[in-house]
Amino acid sequence: MAQKVTPRSEDYARWYTDVVQMAELADYAPVRGCMVIRPYGYALWENIQQALDRRFKATGHQNAYFPLFIPMSFIQKESEHVEGFSPQLAVVTHGGGEKLEEPLAVRPTSETIINAMFAKWVRSYRDLPLLINQWCNVVRWELRTRLFLRTTEFLWQEGHTAHATEQEAREETLRMLEVYRDFAENDAAIPVICGRKSESEKFAGAVESYSIEAMMGNGWALQAGTSHFLGQNFARAFGTQFLNERNELEYVWQTSWGVSTRMIGAVVMVHGDDQGLVLPPRLAPYQAVIVPIWKTGEERRTVLEMAGRVRDMLPNLRLRLDDREGLTPGFKFNDWEMRGVPARIEVGPKDVANNSVALARRDMPGKAGKSFVPQDGLAERLRALFDDIQASLYQQAENFQRANIREVNTYDELKEATQDGWALAPIADDPAVDAQLKDELQVTNRNFPFDQPDGEWRCVVTGRPVRERALVGKAY
Amino acid sequence: MAQKVTPRSEDYARWYTDVVQMAELADYAPVRGCMVIRPYGYALWENIQQALDRRFKATGHQNAYFPLFIPMSFIQKESEHVEGFSPQLAVVTHGGGEKLEEPLAVRPTSETIINAMFAKWVRSYRDLPLLINQWCNVVRWELRTRLFLRTTEFLWQEGHTAHATEQEAREETLRMLEVYRDFAENDAAIPVICGRKSESEKFAGAVESYSIEAMMGNGWALQAGTSHFLGQNFARAFGTQFLNERNELEYVWQTSWGVSTRMIGAVVMVHGDDQGLVLPPRLAPYQAVIVPIWKTGEERRTVLEMAGRVRDMLPNLRLRLDDREGLTPGFKFNDWEMRGVPARIEVGPKDVANNSVALARRDMPGKAGKSFVPQDGLAERLRALFDDIQASLYQQAENFQRANIREVNTYDELKEATQDGWALAPIADDPAVDAQLKDELQVTNRNFPFDQPDGEWRCVVTGRPVRERALVGKAY
Repeated sequence: MAQKVTPRSEDYARWYTDVVQMAELADYAPVRGCMVIRPYGYALWENIQQALDRRFKATGHQNAYFPLFIPMSFIQKESEHVEGFSPQLAVVTHGGGEKLEEPLAVRPTSETIINAMFAKWVRSYRDLPLLINQWCNVVRWELRTRLFLRTTEFLWQEGHTAHATEQEAREETLRMLEVYRDFAENDAAIPVICGRKSESEKFAGAVESYSIEAMMGNGWALQAGTSHFLGQNFARAFGTQFLNERNELEYVWQTSWGVSTRMIGAVVMVHGDDQGLVLPPRLAPYQAVIVPIWKTGEERRTVLEMAGRVRDMLPNLRLRLDDREGLTPGFKFNDWEMRGVPARIEVGPKDVANNSVALARRDMPGKAGKSFVPQDGLAERLRALFDDIQASLYQQAENFQRANIREVNTYDELKEATQDGWALAPIADDPAVDAQLKDELQVTNRNFPFDQPDGEWRCVVTGRPVRERALVGKAY
Repeated sequence: MAQKVTPRSEDYARWYTDVVQMAELADYAPVRGCMVIRPYGYALWENIQQALDRRFKATGHQNAYFPLFIPMSFIQKESEHVEGFSPQLAVVTHGGGEKLEEPLAVRPTSETIINAMFAKWVRSYRDLPLLINQWCNVVRWELRTRLFLRTTEFLWQEGHTAHATEQEAREETLRMLEVYRDFAENDAAIPVICGRKSESEKFAGAVESYSIEAMMGNGWALQAGTSHFLGQNFARAFGTQFLNERNELEYVWQTSWGVSTRMIGAVVMVHGDDQGLVLPPRLAPYQAVIVPIWKTGEERRTVLEMAGRVRDMLPNLRLRLDDREGLTPGFKFNDWEMRGVPARIEVGPKDVANNSVALARRDMPGKAGKSFVPQDGLAERLRALFDDIQASLYQQAENFQRANIREVNTYDELKEATQDGWALAPIADDPAVDAQLKDELQVTNRNFPFDQPDGEWRCVVTGRPVRERALVGKAY
C-alpha cells in the first residue's frame, strides 16, 4: 500500500506536514529551524524561479550576488531596520579560529549591504535606474517553524532598485507587485489580493509596503510576495547619492521586493486535497506520469515498449515514465496522486493493440476525469488538458476565496467572519488596532486592498471614521 | 576615453584585478574577504551554471538544497575532514539574541550535513544510487583573497552521491570529472589536464581526489574542478547504511564533486589579453554588441532604425544594442573590447544604404578580424563565426599550454621549468615531497595525469623509483 496522508478535513496542520514530507518536497533538518528541500520540492522551486526570473529580465532587471555576511554596524545604520531585524539575527563571532573584531550578521535581507555597494557604484543620473535582483538564502531566527512557511533559513529572490525620482521608485514598487500577481495567478493558479500593508505590518525601514495575499484551504491568509517603497531611508543611512541633471547631489529613491520558498507552501495549501498534493501544470516537476500496466511477461515487453514510444512522442512536456519493477499499477496511481502530478497516462495491452492510452486528471478523481484517447494527436490533447487543469485549479481557488471573504461592519461580525475566512472590515491604520486584533482574535490586518468600495465607515475597533476596508484574517 | 587595464605583460596580478573590476565582473565587498558578483559577472556565472546543470541532469542527477548551518559536532565526526576544515570555519555562536548551546559552522562544504540526511533516506539497495547536486554559497575563512580565485564566500555546485558498490562510486567519480573536462574544453574553451591528486593535496575525508588543472596566461595552474571518491568514510561516520539484495546491512559508497565561481577567474586568465577580457561565445553574456555609427541627426535616425532591425533579425543570439547617447563609437569599441564581447557588429550610414554591416572579432584585433558582409544570412554567418572563435580560443590556449609543459628528470630542471610553466616530473606520492617543493620552490604537485608515458624513473626529490610523472607548477 502506498502511504496515505492524514485527511485534510481531519487535521489541516498534520495534513500539510504529511503532504510535504510524504510527497518528498522537504524534510526536517537536524539543525534547529532548518529544512532540507528534497529533489521533488527543489524541481518545483526551479520552475518557480524560471517563471519569475523570466519576468524580472523582461522588466529590465539583472541578477547579481552580494555577500552573505553583513557587518553589524551596517544593520544598525537604519533605525527601524535594526529594530525590526535584531531579534532575528544569526551572528558569526568567530572566523578562521579567531574572535572577530566586529561580529557579522548572516543576512536576513540585503538592503544594507546592497546600499553600501550602490553608494560606490552610483555617481550620476546616467547610472540610474539601477535594477538588480539576487537569488539567495537568508536567515531569520525562528522559534516555531513549519516546513516552507517559516524556517530559520529559506531561499528567496530579493530585488533592489535605485531611481532618480520618487515617482519612478513608486511605479517600480507597484510594477513588481503586479509581476508577482501575474505569476501567482497565471503560473501558480493562486488568486491573490493586492494591497498596502498597514503601518505596523510594513517592512522595517520601508515607507510603504505592499503584498499579495493568498487564501489557503483552511481560510487562513499567506503573504505570498511583498514589494516595498523604501523612499530615501537607506540612501540617507548609506549616503547613496547621485548628481542629477542640474549637477546637484540627491539621494536615490529605492525599492525592494521578494518572493520566497514560502510560495511552495502556498501551492500545497491552495490546491491540495485529501489525497495529497495537486500541482498546477505550469509549475509541476512532472506534468504527466506514464504508468504501464501488464500481467504476463509478453504483455510487459510490449507495454513497456509502447510506453517508451508514448514518452518519445511528447518531447516538449515534462514527463516521467514509471517503469519501477515490483510495484502494482494501483500503488503507482496512488503514489503519483499523492505527489500531485496533473495527469496520468495509462498504457495497457489493449492500448498496444489500439494505439490508444487512458488519460486521468488529478484534479478530477474517478471516472469523471478519465478518458480513453488515441495516441494520435496526444501532444496537442495534453497541452489542452494542461490548460484546462490550470484554469480549473485557478477557478476553484477563486471560488473558494470569494465564498470565504465577507464584508463586515462590526467587531462581532469580524470575529465571526475570521473563524474560517477573511473579513473586509473598516479598520483604522493604527498599530494599536492591529495589536488589539492580534491579541484578542489572533487575526492580522493582511493589507488594505487596492480594490476598494467607495464610502466612509466607522473602524470596527475604535469607532473612528475611516475610508478604507482592510483584509483581516488568521495568517501563517 | 574608455578606461584602460594595466597591460598583462606589465603586471599580471594587477592586470587580472583591473580586468575583473573594470569589466564589472566583480567588486570588493566591505566585508573582509568577500566579493560582490556584479551583473555582468553573474550573467557569465548563469551561463556556466546552465551548461553544467544540463550535463548533471543528463547524467541522472537531481538538484536539492541542504542547510547553510552545520552543527560543529557533525564536522567533527570524520577525523580528516575536521582537521582539514577547522581552520577555515566561520562560526555562528548567537541566534535570536541568545547564545547557542552548540555553535553552528557556516558550511565550508556539505558532506556531513548531507550524510546526516542520506542516513535517514537510504533504506535499501532500491534507494540507490542517490544522485544529488546542490547549487549554493559556501564559506571558507581566507586571509589573502583574490576576486573569484580565493574569497571567504563563494558560489559553487557540490554533487553528492551514494552507491551500493565501490565500483559504481569509482565510476561516478570519474564520470563527473569527465563532465567537468567536457564543459571546460567545449564551453569555456579551456584545455585541462585530468589526473589524480597526491595524498597531501586530496580532499579532507576522501580516499582519492581527482582534478582538472588549467594553465593560466602566466603559466600558473588553477584547479578548475575536483571530483572525490569518498569510499565509506562519511558513511561510517554517519551510519549511512542500506540493506543489500542479500538483506545484509552495508555502508554506502560515496562521491562528491564541485566547480565554483573560480571558473570565472580561469576564463579571465586563460583568454584575456592586454585590452582586457576575451570571452568564449558559448559563455559570453553578450555574444555580440551592435554599435550604431552616425554623424548627422538624419543619419542617427536611419542608423538606429537599421541597428534595431539587425537586432530583431537575430532573436536566438545573446545581443546587446549599444544605443547609449553621448559616447563616441570609438569609446564603445574600446569599452566592449575591454569587456570581452566576442563580436562587434557596426552599423553606419553606408550599411543603411547597402543592407550590410561591418563585423569585427574580439580575438583578432585590427583589420585581420574585420569583414564587411551583407545583412542577408547574418544569423548563419554569426553562428559560424562564434564556432570559429570558440575553436580558435581553445586552440590558442592549447598551443600555449603545450608550449609551456616540459618533461623533466632532475630537480634543477623542475625548478627551471616551473619558473613560467609546468613540469611533468617523476615525483613520489609523499606528503614530505609535496611539502619540500612548496617550501623550496613555491610550486605544488597539481595532479598525476591520467595520460602517462610508460616507464620507471627516479623521483627528482627523493631519488626513489616511481612509475608516474606529476604535473608540477606554481598555482592559484
